[in-house]
Amino acid sequence: MTDAAFAQVDQVDLETLGRQAKQASRELARLNTEQKNEVIQAIAIALRAHSDEILASNYLDLDEAKQNGLSAAMLDRLTLNETRLEAIAKEVENVVRLADPVGQEFDQRMLPQGMRIKRRRTPLGVVGVIYEARPNVTVDVAVLCLKTNNAVILRGGKETLRSNRVLVRILRQALQDAGLNPNCIQLIASPDRELVRQMLKLDKYIDMLIPRGGAELHQFCKENATMPVITGGIGVCHMYVDAFLDLDSAIPVIYNAKVQRPTVCNALDTLLVHHLIAPDLIPMLAESLAQADVEVRADVQAYPLFEQENYPKLVHASHSDWGTEFLDLVLSVKIVEDLDEALDFISQYSSGHSEAILTLKTEHAERFLNEVDSAAVYVNASTRFTDGAMFGLGAEVAVSTQKLHARGPMALEGLTTYKWLVEGRWNARP
Amino acid sequence: MTDAAFAQVDQVDLETLGRQAKQASRELARLNTEQKNEVIQAIAIALRAHSDEILASNYLDLDEAKQNGLSAAMLDRLTLNETRLEAIAKEVENVVRLADPVGQEFDQRMLPQGMRIKRRRTPLGVVGVIYEARPNVTVDVAVLCLKTNNAVILRGGKETLRSNRVLVRILRQALQDAGLNPNCIQLIASPDRELVRQMLKLDKYIDMLIPRGGAELHQFCKENATMPVITGGIGVCHMYVDAFLDLDSAIPVIYNAKVQRPTVCNALDTLLVHHLIAPDLIPMLAESLAQADVEVRADVQAYPLFEQENYPKLVHASHSDWGTEFLDLVLSVKIVEDLDEALDFISQYSSGHSEAILTLKTEHAERFLNEVDSAAVYVNASTRFTDGAMFGLGAEVAVSTQKLHARGPMALEGLTTYKWLVEGRWNARP
Repeated sequence: MTDAAFAQVDQVDLETLGRQAKQASRELARLNTEQKNEVIQAIAIALRAHSDEILASNYLDLDEAKQNGLSAAMLDRLTLNETRLEAIAKEVENVVRLADPVGQEFDQRMLPQGMRIKRRRTPLGVVGVIYEARPNVTVDVAVLCLKTNNAVILRGGKETLRSNRVLVRILRQALQDAGLNPNCIQLIASPDRELVRQMLKLDKYIDMLIPRGGAELHQFCKENATMPVITGGIGVCHMYVDAFLDLDSAIPVIYNAKVQRPTVCNALDTLLVHHLIAPDLIPMLAESLAQADVEVRADVQAYPLFEQENYPKLVHASHSDWGTEFLDLVLSVKIVEDLDEALDFISQYSSGHSEAILTLKTEHAERFLNEVDSAAVYVNASTRFTDGAMFGLGAEVAVSTQKLHARGPMALEGLTTYKWLVEGRWNARP
Repeated sequence: MTDAAFAQVDQVDLETLGRQAKQASRELARLNTEQKNEVIQAIAIALRAHSDEILASNYLDLDEAKQNGLSAAMLDRLTLNETRLEAIAKEVENVVRLADPVGQEFDQRMLPQGMRIKRRRTPLGVVGVIYEARPNVTVDVAVLCLKTNNAVILRGGKETLRSNRVLVRILRQALQDAGLNPNCIQLIASPDRELVRQMLKLDKYIDMLIPRGGAELHQFCKENATMPVITGGIGVCHMYVDAFLDLDSAIPVIYNAKVQRPTVCNALDTLLVHHLIAPDLIPMLAESLAQADVEVRADVQAYPLFEQENYPKLVHASHSDWGTEFLDLVLSVKIVEDLDEALDFISQYSSGHSEAILTLKTEHAERFLNEVDSAAVYVNASTRFTDGAMFGLGAEVAVSTQKLHARGPMALEGLTTYKWLVEGRWNARP
């Protein structure tokens, strides 16, 4: 490794990081698609070439994390191995193949004064990302930023500091080997939480901040950041089961939404069931959910229906079971009078991520699509589809649940802005 | 006036305003284009019908403002009269004719799993606007929000409180007469500055905040708001005069950019002149600018060239004349070596609003368009064109100089978001 690639990883003066990122972003803005793809491909190669070094650093992180008593789920997210590293390298190669949004032109037209106007997609400049202890995110985010000509400042979870230092060093070396400024990718290489607070004030340098983590981190960023923040990632997802329904079709969709991967933000949290169909639905549903050992937290009307089936993990829902993201094999179930009650409930408790209706009645599907104000609204499909790759956008940097700039899965296009280009005629006057 | 239309104008509990706005926004979301246009037309009629009342309240505002020694420019912005009120009503009618972005669908396609996905444009929900003492903004903004199904909370300059109270009462009465919730339009009817601070924390209710005013207000909002903020409106605009040029064509463009309306954000502030053309350009430019009594603040190289022409209002530029928005008949002029120096200078001092190059050389025009990172970039045209109506977008709510969501003139589309609608097949699985 050369000095420059090494040097930065011990740099924790944020003003310097910011200034360096801004400078690097100007150089980066000049790269064309081919040049970007070449260095991204080189990164995939470098990750494979340095797998021993990466896994050794990750092993030390894991060792310390175990001593500190991290949960099994956190340890799992923290863990790298040969297979996972290869998957990361493959994902990097996938980014090479994604269409490049930067430079796309749209809305071209002539103005009455005879001038030609158009919009062109451009990089944002510098992106800041704060995320949890997942070393794969370090590589994913850095490469998506590179693909969109953005410099990035990374702040990963303290539990992965060793892994991140090695990964970022490898990424920076690849940039340097390609004749690029390594400061396109920088890491805040200290666990000091005060640095996050400082980072949030760097609006002079950072054009957009993406927090990836729990509700607390998002709230902290909203309250303290002086630059635009993309909040999201919290999915309190609802599914409403209407009275007009084919039960055999409905059960597998509910099962999929809850069970396929309960630890992610698009997994189902609360099931709302029309009171007329509940007596038929719930016995079938109970049989299905019991197979996956799902804990059901039922409201007063749903409880006896599950109880009749001798449902093994049944508890009475308390108020805190509504509007809660379980991230676990837990489902809260409520019986509702009709679509209106379901819509009101969702309006009150949803986090604006993903909601679904199961119905055969077109008017009800239409009303649900119109009136639910969430990033993704489904008819007869699982909320689990909310994902950049599933939506055909490629890898996502975040799932936005706020309404500005990007909503829902945020992929390459969300890492760009546009500028207006106007070519005049000398005699045109406003 | 009915009670409800009156009642709100003395309501200054922000939590209540916020909750009411959220509730109103849900009702508003159901209106179609025709219903919205009808109430907007009714607002134009109501403004004309109540002109005496509006002008009387404005007279009281003006009287107090004069006693308080407001500047002539501020008094002018504050003033309403028959002609201006008619212009406001006409502008309201123009909004009726604008295409409705809400409900537009785009990016429709089939996913591999056989599901149909599309994006639909939807309202943001609740918009907050903080603005200076310009009563026309009260009406403009409220009507643009109405056209996009957004509820709005207005906070105008304290000098126009009487005018705003009357205007908002009339707007709310028009909503109520149309059977709509008057809380679609609410005013913070108190000059207490503490309420602005409270407003900036209402992220639970306000989806987007638009500050319209000076740099200080924007900075305050960036630092204190917990919801997304659209910053902008500060235009430190540059024009670079290249060596490859027809002088007779160039002079009127420079004159227009500086002189046509110097008090607005898209007016020219700093002229950069290629050193080779300066000896020919500046005598012609001096003759032109002198006619409009423009003060020139010249750098060391430009100064003697203006001096030779006995330019009447000539001063030496100081460091603070670069990167300054003059909002007046003042122009700073600097001689540069070449395009590269101009690009570096603009990168350092621009506010990212509007910049222009005057050149006959295509490669230079291309580089300028590519490398200047501003909302609007011009070739051979005046920066004065940066405007929603000029760009064919209709009335603007702001000119954004930040990069997320909307950049440059922000019109109806900037007041919308989108949601993803997915219609599934029962057997589709992620």
